[in-house]
Amino acid sequence: LKKNRSPLIFSTQLPSRRSFGAETLLIYDQFLESSPAVAKWIAGFPHKYGVTSGEDLKSVESFPAHIRKIMSVGESLSSRQMIIVVLGGGSVGDFGSFVASIFKRGVRLVQIPSTWLAAIDSAHGGKTALNVGGVKNQIGTFYPAEKIYLVKNLLLSQPNIRAQDAFSEIYKVALLQGGAFWQSFAKGGRPDGAILWKFLKPAIAAKYKVVDRDPLEKTGHRHLLNFGHSLGHVLESLHQLPHGTAINYGLEFALVWSQTKKFLKPAMAKKIFSAPASQYLLSPGGAGLLNSSNAAKMKSLLEGDKKKVSSQKMRFIFCRAPGKCFIQEVTFSEILAEVSRQSSIAHD
Amino acid sequence: LKKNRSPLIFSTQLPSRRSFGAETLLIYDQFLESSPAVAKWIAGFPHKYGVTSGEDLKSVESFPAHIRKIMSVGESLSSRQMIIVVLGGGSVGDFGSFVASIFKRGVRLVQIPSTWLAAIDSAHGGKTALNVGGVKNQIGTFYPAEKIYLVKNLLLSQPNIRAQDAFSEIYKVALLQGGAFWQSFAKGGRPDGAILWKFLKPAIAAKYKVVDRDPLEKTGHRHLLNFGHSLGHVLESLHQLPHGTAINYGLEFALVWSQTKKFLKPAMAKKIFSAPASQYLLSPGGAGLLNSSNAAKMKSLLEGDKKKVSSQKMRFIFCRAPGKCFIQEVTFSEILAEVSRQSSIAHD
Repeated sequence: LKKNRSPLIFSTQLPSRRSFGAETLLIYDQFLESSPAVAKWIAGFPHKYGVTSGEDLKSVESFPAHIRKIMSVGESLSSRQMIIVVLGGGSVGDFGSFVASIFKRGVRLVQIPSTWLAAIDSAHGGKTALNVGGVKNQIGTFYPAEKIYLVKNLLLSQPNIRAQDAFSEIYKVALLQGGAFWQSFAKGGRPDGAILWKFLKPAIAAKYKVVDRDPLEKTGHRHLLNFGHSLGHVLESLHQLPHGTAINYGLEFALVWSQTKKFLKPAMAKKIFSAPASQYLLSPGGAGLLNSSNAAKMKSLLEGDKKKVSSQKMRFIFCRAPGKCFIQEVTFSEILAEVSRQSSIAHD
Repeated sequence: LKKNRSPLIFSTQLPSRRSFGAETLLIYDQFLESSPAVAKWIAGFPHKYGVTSGEDLKSVESFPAHIRKIMSVGESLSSRQMIIVVLGGGSVGDFGSFVASIFKRGVRLVQIPSTWLAAIDSAHGGKTALNVGGVKNQIGTFYPAEKIYLVKNLLLSQPNIRAQDAFSEIYKVALLQGGAFWQSFAKGGRPDGAILWKFLKPAIAAKYKVVDRDPLEKTGHRHLLNFGHSLGHVLESLHQLPHGTAINYGLEFALVWSQTKKFLKPAMAKKIFSAPASQYLLSPGGAGLLNSSNAAKMKSLLEGDKKKVSSQKMRFIFCRAPGKCFIQEVTFSEILAEVSRQSSIAHD
């Protein structure tokens, strides 16, 4: 089942509008119109629907109004030939690809991610999503794009702060994959656009390698992609951190816990932590984010995690070495004990 | 691609609740609780969501409220194991199967159609649907149930008037399929429950035979199932007829037009029209439903038809003989001319 893998097109510039044909409907992040070049490209589409990115866009509560307008914009297009082109970051991608997957029971879909995180992560794997009652990604479909464009000039036009977010995702997949990708990234990976563009292709390939073994999330193998995310998501909610920053903290937490559990042996730990790329990892203990006074709140956030396997346990990803990460069930109490331990070490 | 074919289970009684396992969420038509036996069966499900059937249920505008409540009813269920069981007629089936297809990106689905039309037609083929801004089936998915139960006692408990609706669908597929199915149905088919139950299995098999050749509606072959529907839908809207009654008129119209066009030769026409089952066909001309004063309204309804191929033309299904029906493009003017012709014959 390779159908979750979308063909990737790496290019310098946005693709020509004509390459999509006449029956095209563009769903795009209105924020991108602040760039004159992108605004001009968008203006060329006769059928288009601009949105404001963010989690509100994905709320099912606002979906009826969106879909009515999109239906009206696309009214004259033949549903058999039409293509929905989605230009934007994660939330626009989740929303726009969900629309494509249910519009007249599914039309052709092309994605053009405009943020590093979307380019590396969320645009791939075919997951579409909306939120229900404020809870993320409660409904959605599996609907891989027929093409994903990765556009250098578009991605490089982002403010540099965004590179930090994406850095964590590349660090994660480099460590999951190991081998030459890890070697090369460990030596030179750092949070700036030129480096991210350089490692974009191997990072996507590494993600697909995991996804391909578990395209519909049935075997559990795909959970490896949640490396660093269990605690990461908790810190994101608890301290209102940007996703990438939170995952960055979560990765360090998972590596240190792997050491505590002796999965990661001292020599290998030293190798990993001394790599240049690892200098950009952040310690949640060191940053004072692990605070046992938050234990109850943390526990309830962990319990809401979709990687939960029972009311007491969840799947956690540990690491023995680059390329040797694995899933193990842990209890919420064990996580909280390790949070407390890493917090006390940082405070010593 | 056989995945659009759901395994069918013919049984006398509703299946035992235990057969679905503990992680089951029932979506059901509340009207069915008026039968004490069915009400008792429904009451056995700890996780259930009752709905009012009809097109309002399928409106995307009311979807956010429904999905919030369904999420809350299903909150404690594991999305990996859970089954959504949908008990109801066409609208409940379209709605419930759409919910199953997007709930946590898709959970297991079992359908138990409670009306003849759903049992024969809408529960099969994997189409789910909601309406947008009052326009039917604008969004949806292809999501075949993993099992469809056809329950004799449930179907026979419907008021007999419902049998008329289903009769047209069976007549249609019998004529599309031809052969032994048509021979047998032509001799004894009539709109009552016992007969419908008898022909349910071959009718579903005939529908799948068409669907299997075009599961995702890509080749056009599946349009054959619209035999009788082009004018049928127009009459349904224009005169607020029940769907089955409208299709019944539409079938007669299509057969008579096939004669006019000399696709259907006099000897074969006589054979078809003299069959006992054909005595239950209704003539739209004879019933005074074809009225040229409605021509403008009719034209605009035809233009809204999804079988439209351009602003001037649509696909129409004609018949040479049982088992020899075919699709041909016709202009809206041709349809209106034939409407006028059949109307004047009836008035002579």
